[in-house]
Amino acid sequence: MQPEPSRYDRGLATMRAIFGPGIESALKGLAANSPDLARCLIEFPFGDIYPRPGLDLKTREMLTVAALTVLGYPQAELKDHIRGALNVGCTRDEILEIILQMAVYAGFPAALEAVKTAASVFGEKQQSANDPS
Amino acid sequence: MQPEPSRYDRGLATMRAIFGPGIESALKGLAANSPDLARCLIEFPFGDIYPRPGLDLKTREMLTVAALTVLGYPQAELKDHIRGALNVGCTRDEILEIILQMAVYAGFPAALEAVKTAASVFGEKQQSANDPS
Amino acid sequence: MQPEPSRYDRGLATMRAIFGPGIESALKGLAANSPDLARCLIEFPFGDIYPRPGLDLKTREMLTVAALTVLGYPQAELKDHIRGALNVGCTRDEILEIILQMAVYAGFPAALEAVKTAASVFGEKQQSANDPS
Amino acid sequence: MQPEPSRYDRGLATMRAIFGPGIESALKGLAANSPDLARCLIEFPFGDIYPRPGLDLKTREMLTVAALTVLGYPQAELKDHIRGALNVGCTRDEILEIILQMAVYAGFPAALEAVKTAASVFGEKQQSANDPS
Amino acid sequence: MQPEPSRYDRGLATMRAIFGPGIESALKGLAANSPDLARCLIEFPFGDIYPRPGLDLKTREMLTVAALTVLGYPQAELKDHIRGALNVGCTRDEILEIILQMAVYAGFPAALEAVKTAASVFGEKQQSANDPS
Amino acid sequence: MQPEPSRYDRGLATMRAIFGPGIESALKGLAANSPDLARCLIEFPFGDIYPRPGLDLKTREMLTVAALTVLGYPQAELKDHIRGALNVGCTRDEILEIILQMAVYAGFPAALEAVKTAASVFGEKQQSANDPS
Repeated sequence: MQPEPSRYDRGLATMRAIFGPGIESALKGLAANSPDLARCLIEFPFGDIYPRPGLDLKTREMLTVAALTVLGYPQAELKDHIRGALNVGCTRDEILEIILQMAVYAGFPAALEAVKTAASVFGEKQQSANDPS
Repeated sequence: MQPEPSRYDRGLATMRAIFGPGIESALKGLAANSPDLARCLIEFPFGDIYPRPGLDLKTREMLTVAALTVLGYPQAELKDHIRGALNVGCTRDEILEIILQMAVYAGFPAALEAVKTAASVFGEKQQSANDPS
Repeated sequence: MQPEPSRYDRGLATMRAIFGPGIESALKGLAANSPDLARCLIEFPFGDIYPRPGLDLKTREMLTVAALTVLGYPQAELKDHIRGALNVGCTRDEILEIILQMAVYAGFPAALEAVKTAASVFGEKQQSANDPS
Repeated sequence: MQPEPSRYDRGLATMRAIFGPGIESALKGLAANSPDLARCLIEFPFGDIYPRPGLDLKTREMLTVAALTVLGYPQAELKDHIRGALNVGCTRDEILEIILQMAVYAGFPAALEAVKTAASVFGEKQQSANDPS
Repeated sequence: MQPEPSRYDRGLATMRAIFGPGIESALKGLAANSPDLARCLIEFPFGDIYPRPGLDLKTREMLTVAALTVLGYPQAELKDHIRGALNVGCTRDEILEIILQMAVYAGFPAALEAVKTAASVFGEKQQSANDPS
Repeated sequence: MQPEPSRYDRGLATMRAIFGPGIESALKGLAANSPDLARCLIEFPFGDIYPRPGLDLKTREMLTVAALTVLGYPQAELKDHIRGALNVGCTRDEILEIILQMAVYAGFPAALEAVKTAASVFGEKQQSANDPS
């Protein structure tokens, strides 16, 4: 019988599932600046909240895209979560639809900023899809 | 062959589907104060955005509950949309789960305020469910 | 030759011009809680900024109604400034038009909250206009 | 007798009046990323709201500069609207005066960020005014 | 040798130290509405963050009063934390000084709202100090 | 007997004490864009508020780091105040601890953005400490 994984291990596994294996080096960068924030981020949002059974990962990522669009300032986090949303099954059209709806609740500037961020993620994916290597 | 419904008619139908028939008197109240805002509200969010096929009504209401929780100040609108979310198929547990996740993105005060608002809606529904009349 | 009025005196005069003579008792209430905030409020916004010649008082009040609508949480301050805007020459229609435009920049919840506040001010004025005494 | 222009045509004409003919290529860029947000932006804010007779274009642009200064994060939109405000008759001094007043309502960081954005617009206009070609 | 207390126990002890014994019934109220948010609140902010040695409780409460003043909408949480700040050694003058400083960073409406909330806490303490029972 | 320094002189002295002598050229840059905002910034926050005896400069800088982390958008101002906080006696660990605590009140995106800004300040100080010249 296996022991229950720690909050940290569960959080890291969830982050890998959402953001892909590249998350490890991003977390190393964060941990170099604030090891405590890195640990809290892994353990609380991704160890405690995201793995809860009440909502599936795709729905959670959609809600997070909405939340970050509304906040407006965290475009770097929005970029990560748009990548994450695509990884867990959102389509580009769904992401653009979420952003469009947020124009109603946080105004057009919020939606305009988020669309630019979404486009930069989509462009990057396009590039790598076209990459012949 | 039927003509396409106007933005206004489509918006009103969508609002009825989400908020129930009580919405008419709420809209009358709003229209008494600002007929133009009432018309814009019916036509743009509920006539143009919500009926779009890209996301179903239940998902839209979940995103709106997330957005209003993050904004924090519009508890009256959050109350209406929690009622709406329940009407279009969200469970209470899903609503509480959305609010819990928003603690990650907008902090605990946002989640605490939203839970109080959710509880007031749930209490009211409980009451009317228990109502012998 | 008269000496230049102090920042405090100029601020108080500006507040009287905008909010009417009732402002004195409101300021006494604030000063009882925080005399320093009361003094800063009189001297900086209303002593230094509002009397500057670059914009007239009516325009300044319109900008403030826009700002407070966007912020969303300060409905008490918005109420005061809607009264102030009416006192310095804004019409009710102009105030509702400002609020409507803010739906574009801060979303519909911001506009809906502000319209309720505007209606409560208009109602109160109506009442006193109808008052036979 | 001419038919009434569509919301789209009226919106595009209003955007041209505010932002100048360069707006078409900006809108093409947006439409490449999200054709629906581009359409909504043209039709709702600029087709429905801005052309309303209740406030003139100059006043509307002043209110929008105030709103975007208060929000703080949408400096790209603020840049566009400062250009727009100048195009429809605002002076540089009026724009700086609006930003200064917003220090009262959204704090000094909001005003400091907006002044940097305003300065970058003014610098660019200066440049093109000096341009011998 | 005593085992290390759980995050939950440590959080509850920290909350008692800050908010006094009355916190238990407040937490029961919250847990009746959302047991998961209640558990997260106890475990993460008060179990993980506040007991860390990097800042003492009085400094933490001062920072939280600043944060809640800036956010503006969570006056209920601000009320609790002003009570908490007084309990862990802040003076009334220090609380008013924090709020005054926040006028610089979040504008006067934020400070005005927070002063009203502070005054309501101070009044309540006054009352109970005067209470002959 | 010396006359009391003017608000302007007191503000400039306070800014030098917090930000170091480099502040003069930053203020010249601001004054070139908006002389009135520069004067207000010197006189009100740094002439009137910061020199008040109610809180020491180190505590004030800590509160400001908290406030700017919560606001999220003003990373340029946060950078200046993290430098200022270090100058008046805050340690790097205290700054990171403040930012970590703000994850509770404004969410993880606010903390993640602020940690990046703090790291950029710490890196620059490191560099100049290592500088052999």
